[in-house]
Amino acid sequence: MEFQMNTTVKFKHDAKLLKKAQQAKPQLQYKQLVPQRIVKIIPDQQELFGYRAVSQSQTITKLNQLSFGKGERVVLDLGDHQVGHFQIKINSVGSPMDAPLWLHVVFAELPAEIGTNHEPYHGELSSSWLAEEYLHLDVLPSLLKLPRRYACRYIMLEVMDTSPKWKAVFSEPLFTAESAVSSEQTLKLDSGDPLLDQIDRVSCKTLLDCMQEVFEDGPKRDRRLWLGDLRLQALANYATFDNQQLVKRCLYLFGGLTTEDGRISANIFTQKEPIPDDTFLYDYSLFFISTLADYFAHYHDMEVLQDLFPIAQRQLDQALQLVDQQGQVELDPKWPIFIDWSQEFDKATCAQAVTIYALKQFLELAQEMKIATDQYQATLDKLVNFATEKLYNQQRGLFVSGAKQEINIASQVWMALAHVLPPAENHALMETALKELFPITGIATPYMYHHVCAALFETRHSAAALDLIKDYWGGMLKYGADTFWEAFQPEKPAFSPYNSMAINSYCHAWSCTPAYLLRKYLKK
Amino acid sequence: MEFQMNTTVKFKHDAKLLKKAQQAKPQLQYKQLVPQRIVKIIPDQQELFGYRAVSQSQTITKLNQLSFGKGERVVLDLGDHQVGHFQIKINSVGSPMDAPLWLHVVFAELPAEIGTNHEPYHGELSSSWLAEEYLHLDVLPSLLKLPRRYACRYIMLEVMDTSPKWKAVFSEPLFTAESAVSSEQTLKLDSGDPLLDQIDRVSCKTLLDCMQEVFEDGPKRDRRLWLGDLRLQALANYATFDNQQLVKRCLYLFGGLTTEDGRISANIFTQKEPIPDDTFLYDYSLFFISTLADYFAHYHDMEVLQDLFPIAQRQLDQALQLVDQQGQVELDPKWPIFIDWSQEFDKATCAQAVTIYALKQFLELAQEMKIATDQYQATLDKLVNFATEKLYNQQRGLFVSGAKQEINIASQVWMALAHVLPPAENHALMETALKELFPITGIATPYMYHHVCAALFETRHSAAALDLIKDYWGGMLKYGADTFWEAFQPEKPAFSPYNSMAINSYCHAWSCTPAYLLRKYLKK
Repeated sequence: MEFQMNTTVKFKHDAKLLKKAQQAKPQLQYKQLVPQRIVKIIPDQQELFGYRAVSQSQTITKLNQLSFGKGERVVLDLGDHQVGHFQIKINSVGSPMDAPLWLHVVFAELPAEIGTNHEPYHGELSSSWLAEEYLHLDVLPSLLKLPRRYACRYIMLEVMDTSPKWKAVFSEPLFTAESAVSSEQTLKLDSGDPLLDQIDRVSCKTLLDCMQEVFEDGPKRDRRLWLGDLRLQALANYATFDNQQLVKRCLYLFGGLTTEDGRISANIFTQKEPIPDDTFLYDYSLFFISTLADYFAHYHDMEVLQDLFPIAQRQLDQALQLVDQQGQVELDPKWPIFIDWSQEFDKATCAQAVTIYALKQFLELAQEMKIATDQYQATLDKLVNFATEKLYNQQRGLFVSGAKQEINIASQVWMALAHVLPPAENHALMETALKELFPITGIATPYMYHHVCAALFETRHSAAALDLIKDYWGGMLKYGADTFWEAFQPEKPAFSPYNSMAINSYCHAWSCTPAYLLRKYLKK
Repeated sequence: MEFQMNTTVKFKHDAKLLKKAQQAKPQLQYKQLVPQRIVKIIPDQQELFGYRAVSQSQTITKLNQLSFGKGERVVLDLGDHQVGHFQIKINSVGSPMDAPLWLHVVFAELPAEIGTNHEPYHGELSSSWLAEEYLHLDVLPSLLKLPRRYACRYIMLEVMDTSPKWKAVFSEPLFTAESAVSSEQTLKLDSGDPLLDQIDRVSCKTLLDCMQEVFEDGPKRDRRLWLGDLRLQALANYATFDNQQLVKRCLYLFGGLTTEDGRISANIFTQKEPIPDDTFLYDYSLFFISTLADYFAHYHDMEVLQDLFPIAQRQLDQALQLVDQQGQVELDPKWPIFIDWSQEFDKATCAQAVTIYALKQFLELAQEMKIATDQYQATLDKLVNFATEKLYNQQRGLFVSGAKQEINIASQVWMALAHVLPPAENHALMETALKELFPITGIATPYMYHHVCAALFETRHSAAALDLIKDYWGGMLKYGADTFWEAFQPEKPAFSPYNSMAINSYCHAWSCTPAYLLRKYLKK
């Protein structure tokens, strides 16, 4: 996806809505963790990213008996992915400390981030996201308390320099993990299938690590409230931790920070004061309706609905301006649709389906709000009519997209989720898709894979959906995932959308949805 | 000089003396300074170290109108060498800040430290002394207040990375200079010779920047209280700032932190609790006597003398154990003598002279203390006798040193300073030295050059002494010195004793002595 820059756009700050967002801000829960072992990161071509962590003979309790001179390092393993703050005591042994300690600390979600740390960085995202610090300590002993938050499992302490007369000694490493929810709250799935149970457990941990003062997209990087991620996180949250306040807070943040003409940004920066980004995505805007509808369906919270319905309506109205006479959504290049990172497939039919999907949810909310919906109903009919008449290829039993009548998996999935066809035809649609378009290729996001699985479940292809969950999320587990990843393309598993594995996020909210899908559909 | 490691040595902590050191701790004086201009550091083969700072067209007051993206940098010039703390405001312009700011800050005494910063470091001292920081700022605007103290004139702010969507903006840079004394205290020399006046002014600034909570050797690196440097700084201080407390404090620190058998360390670490180093130098130990004698001569402070005389005596007694039957000092390899960094000349005769020098000062103090000195007087006679009979080559009119009867400048200088020969012969000694051993080569320290000048003044070769001051210290000025350097070898001016110009200290206490020499000898 290309960067958007709209630096002239003006935003409102709705004090009433932002106050409600503030009031719903969670008290973070802290858990103090001690690293479980000392490991060495070694090259291993058998590993997906070329590196492996192996236990060292020294136990972690004897860390303070080891000393480290220039160029020496130690890697601590927390035993699982965590999000939070790190501290460690540092002392010197030998002669008095006749030079500062120059220390390099690297925080890694995967061993390969440490293994490749000394290689030049060629990624497409800012290298400022690489989680590492270079520090000078003038006086030892010191308690080093790093002020920034990190997402990691492995922590490398590398002595850049001391002097020939003394070495550094580390002791009492402590990681304070933080989340809006507690791991004790996690519900076990108990599906009877150990692999599904493990996928669920890792999904829950992924969600937990992304639940901070907002639903973050990924705690390693960005750390932002993205609407597309929020929608899926909220669904997984209802099925697991069931934290109402955090969803409410995020809805109010988006609602309180629209542009002056009422448009919702694709994401909000939340590190200090919330700041809406100048990026706008067609589908993400419409998902404000979806997220509000899902929230209302779960909590029946009329106050939130009344506060935010006008904003939801504004998103829809804006989208519907792009619907032409025959009921076709004609995307504006300045307001692109996401669907998936890939730019390799045509997204016109997805846009049509997402509009129908959101419009249907809007109509449910409008009914609650008791407002007249005739016009919206008429537009829905037009949209559905165009989809079934012009986009559905009866002969193929699949939807086509764009001028070149392209057939791609995303179009089928979104049309299935939008329930454009009657149930039997919808079932047949995905059956045809399973026959003709599987195994899926060219898709690298768990976000899109989620929608494929959801479409299969929704069209009563549960066995295929479970197989796909086991293959796709199970595939990440095979490669050693502690939490589920931002990007994973089974046929090209080491793929990075940013041209660098080191900058990928390996705990990413939009990959946590098996916890939702399994709980919603498994028993059906 | 080789590193010494004596990690098993045990030190006393004399609470009474250390309390007096604590009571004499100065209240640092702070001065807030704004950088004077924006410069660019450009390669220039005409410059000693290959780089030059040139003014940029942007004035410093418009710094906040400039913005800096990935790889861009700005260099601020304080206008003079300073020691203290730095702060600056940082903001972003463009889209909201969608990645941390990764910032590199380099503090440089000379332009070439910035010019060569990206080259690999091959120096022999710890690279942890290179004054640079790598920082991640997650939230802007921020006021960046760096916690460490720096010695610098130039400050480079280099944006390692932002994102394509925004740039960094810097404003309100502020440097808070600190010293135990105020620059307003500085006395003007007014010698009638502009070059000597400039040398004096730069000497005073050098001393001021090294006068912190102790007399530091150099504020960029080490930052330690070295006895050899203290002796010279104290002399320059008496002639200029005349800060009694700081000398007293340093004497008490050395006196309070001897080994269990009473030996004085060559230096003390003073960043937190004072810690004596495990390095012992023959001449530096004896200079405790000299520094105490100089202090007493200036202030007639009986309390300090009574407290510290026994410790001074202990240093002498220890040294005199190395004097053999015929009156020759036989150095112990475990207790080396410094004299100068160079290991290229024989130092045996210097050891003999320094022992005589210190013993004479001890006898003056012993007289004040009213103790019997017959034995010390007898040893002095033996030492002097050996020097004149065995080390002085009457035919050459110079002193020889070691088994190979080496003739070097250091031997003549220290013998002259020890006044081993009667005045006329002492005058002739340095006259012969001037004829035969000048211009001096192979000496890289202002410390040794100080002693050469002092010996010339003491033997009534004032014109030659002034010429040498103008050549040597004036040489540094020609190369752009704002303060005088740790190392300068006129025939090899870019020489670094550590194999890297970047690690040399360019404001070093032992080079400040023209302020003392000119005030003491100029009018004679």
